Amino acid sequence: MRKIITLLTDFGLSDPYPAAMKAVILRINPEAVIVDITHSIDRFNVRMGAFILAHIVEYFPEGSIHVGVVDPGVGTARRPLIVECDRGLLVGPDNGLLIPAARRLGLRRVYRILEDKVRIGWVSHTFHGRDLFAPAAARLSIGERAEHLGEPSLSYVELSFPKPRLKGERIHGEVLYVDGFGNVVTNIDEKLLETLSIGRGSRLLVEIGSKRFEVRLLEAYGEASPGTPLAIVDSFGMLELAVNMGSGSRFFGLKPGDRFAVKVV
Amino acid sequence: MRKIITLLTDFGLSDPYPAAMKAVILRINPEAVIVDITHSIDRFNVRMGAFILAHIVEYFPEGSIHVGVVDPGVGTARRPLIVECDRGLLVGPDNGLLIPAARRLGLRRVYRILEDKVRIGWVSHTFHGRDLFAPAAARLSIGERAEHLGEPSLSYVELSFPKPRLKGERIHGEVLYVDGFGNVVTNIDEKLLETLSIGRGSRLLVEIGSKRFEVRLLEAYGEASPGTPLAIVDSFGMLELAVNMGSGSRFFGLKPGDRFAVKVV
Amino acid sequence: MRKIITLLTDFGLSDPYPAAMKAVILRINPEAVIVDITHSIDRFNVRMGAFILAHIVEYFPEGSIHVGVVDPGVGTARRPLIVECDRGLLVGPDNGLLIPAARRLGLRRVYRILEDKVRIGWVSHTFHGRDLFAPAAARLSIGERAEHLGEPSLSYVELSFPKPRLKGERIHGEVLYVDGFGNVVTNIDEKLLETLSIGRGSRLLVEIGSKRFEVRLLEAYGEASPGTPLAIVDSFGMLELAVNMGSGSRFFGLKPGDRFAVKVV
Repeated sequence: MRKIITLLTDFGLSDPYPAAMKAVILRINPEAVIVDITHSIDRFNVRMGAFILAHIVEYFPEGSIHVGVVDPGVGTARRPLIVECDRGLLVGPDNGLLIPAARRLGLRRVYRILEDKVRIGWVSHTFHGRDLFAPAAARLSIGERAEHLGEPSLSYVELSFPKPRLKGERIHGEVLYVDGFGNVVTNIDEKLLETLSIGRGSRLLVEIGSKRFEVRLLEAYGEASPGTPLAIVDSFGMLELAVNMGSGSRFFGLKPGDRFAVKVV
Repeated sequence: MRKIITLLTDFGLSDPYPAAMKAVILRINPEAVIVDITHSIDRFNVRMGAFILAHIVEYFPEGSIHVGVVDPGVGTARRPLIVECDRGLLVGPDNGLLIPAARRLGLRRVYRILEDKVRIGWVSHTFHGRDLFAPAAARLSIGERAEHLGEPSLSYVELSFPKPRLKGERIHGEVLYVDGFGNVVTNIDEKLLETLSIGRGSRLLVEIGSKRFEVRLLEAYGEASPGTPLAIVDSFGMLELAVNMGSGSRFFGLKPGDRFAVKVV
Repeated sequence: MRKIITLLTDFGLSDPYPAAMKAVILRINPEAVIVDITHSIDRFNVRMGAFILAHIVEYFPEGSIHVGVVDPGVGTARRPLIVECDRGLLVGPDNGLLIPAARRLGLRRVYRILEDKVRIGWVSHTFHGRDLFAPAAARLSIGERAEHLGEPSLSYVELSFPKPRLKGERIHGEVLYVDGFGNVVTNIDEKLLETLSIGRGSRLLVEIGSKRFEVRLLEAYGEASPGTPLAIVDSFGMLELAVNMGSGSRFFGLKPGDRFAVKVV
């Protein structure tokens, strides 16, 4: 059955680990359409994986199956999950990785994968991506039902993401992600900006420790001249601190986890 | 419809941006065959992207659709284009990126994409790859016609590439590209070498600033012993300065944009 | 015909060389399912390529076609091969790259590729991946037979891999591979460990030069606390020296080719 299976892992780009998952998927469903989301999640960084997964799944066709493997607890007591949603399925470890994406797709039911129902061979304790998650996703893609591959689970691990806080005229935010361009993605989303009547052309004062930067909220990077800092609502729908044709991360000195405040001037 | 859509961008290999484009394509055409050309064009280096795209498109089957996104002007006045060619279609920004490839495929007509005809949702000012170019390519792949997705455009931006110059017995050339092996790809093509009767076994003097290197024009890297410099007509069809099992870029001290002269000795 | 063709090369992740191979394959077989195993084999490291290829091919469906290109001798006298196996086909240079994988798939017959039977254009001396191996694999994928694309060959190059040696109570081993996590994959396989009654919970003394490390053989990385060294039978089926959520390579100071000894304490 022609069905999309996406992969998001922290396996990196050198090793044959994503290929091993694809091999197993194609054994079970030769017509699967496999799409790499990324294999460059920072090693063991479940939160970063959860953020990226949550922001990409909605672009895929309804019914797509998303496999996430950022899994420092592989082989231990942490459980392997299938999460059934209104508009898709998610497969991966019970460490919080899948849940934000599941909420976006309409989380319906969580199943604990039963090894005996999905495996195609021996299940290693080091590579559930290949031995459990890939076969589970492939079975789902040929129409096997989650309730036959696992047992319902009422509990699951959930991550807490830092929420922006309003204090007087300031929004206190945190950096969630820095992309390869050096763009600094924050936890302040466009809805909050709208609520505060912050929009195109607003002048913002960004406070990072004792440093102060004044930037304008623009609509396109290229509205600033090359090398000039700016704020923008980015393609994740979040407030982003950037430099046109340069690195916002370097300019502002910000990395994931860093805090800052912003106010209109 | 089973149709090839290729992607060439400067998005890098970590971020989920190519995956977002694939997601959108598969929503519109679930049978699209998506092939990554590369996502490692140097950030904002339109010329490097244009060079790579021009040298790869002819290998793909006729009728393939090539999406190029190296797009520092995204969201500004620069126009989004479809370029109709005798042997394929190209989609991307109007900044010169697509034109050398279009000429190889037989440039026929240029269209300015009309947002309302292609978008599947809101069009951001930061990610036309996902919001305009991917949907345009996907629509073309299911048989929609360029003239229905855009309006004809008589003008378009064209890059000028440095042409080699003959001065007396010297060819003055420029480095276009250094590949991952360190091979130095120049702007001197095999036709020019043939015209000058430079061929297999020719001894060449390479002049770079005040440095002089004597190398032989070989047919295979392995005809030189490991670590030995050589010249070769490479798989792009260009004169290349290389070191067998080593880095030509390091040996000759050359990077893209650098100039040199070469003559037969 | 829907058929899997895998690619393993040392081309890296920046250049359009893998894409050129895919383009040629899709010209000959538009329905080929192309899977990247890896393009990050260390440049010219045929042994590393052979190790990875051997350990991945069995996961793919029977009948898959595996193309390997780690090929410092491209364009010289080294021969281009098709290797016919009980459970698949391999295509690549005659430098030992394919043979360990072929043995895993049941090596049956070796053919020297005849250029005139496979090429779709001019055959360069620099890029047989595109000009010979990709078209050969694509032709095999549409049902053309190896004996029509090449001539039988009785000899082929074979690499020797270092075998672990038993001396008294010590196993003398060698590092074969270090993965992107920093996990140190050795040449000691699980069968040898079983023979010596080394299993879960065994305490091992690892001797590297004058350094000594005591580690336990665990079943899952997460059985050690973060930052703690351990030994494990990894997803390759080999004894691996690792650090939970850290780099075994850095901790033990080991890289491919390094030797060590291990004994039970």
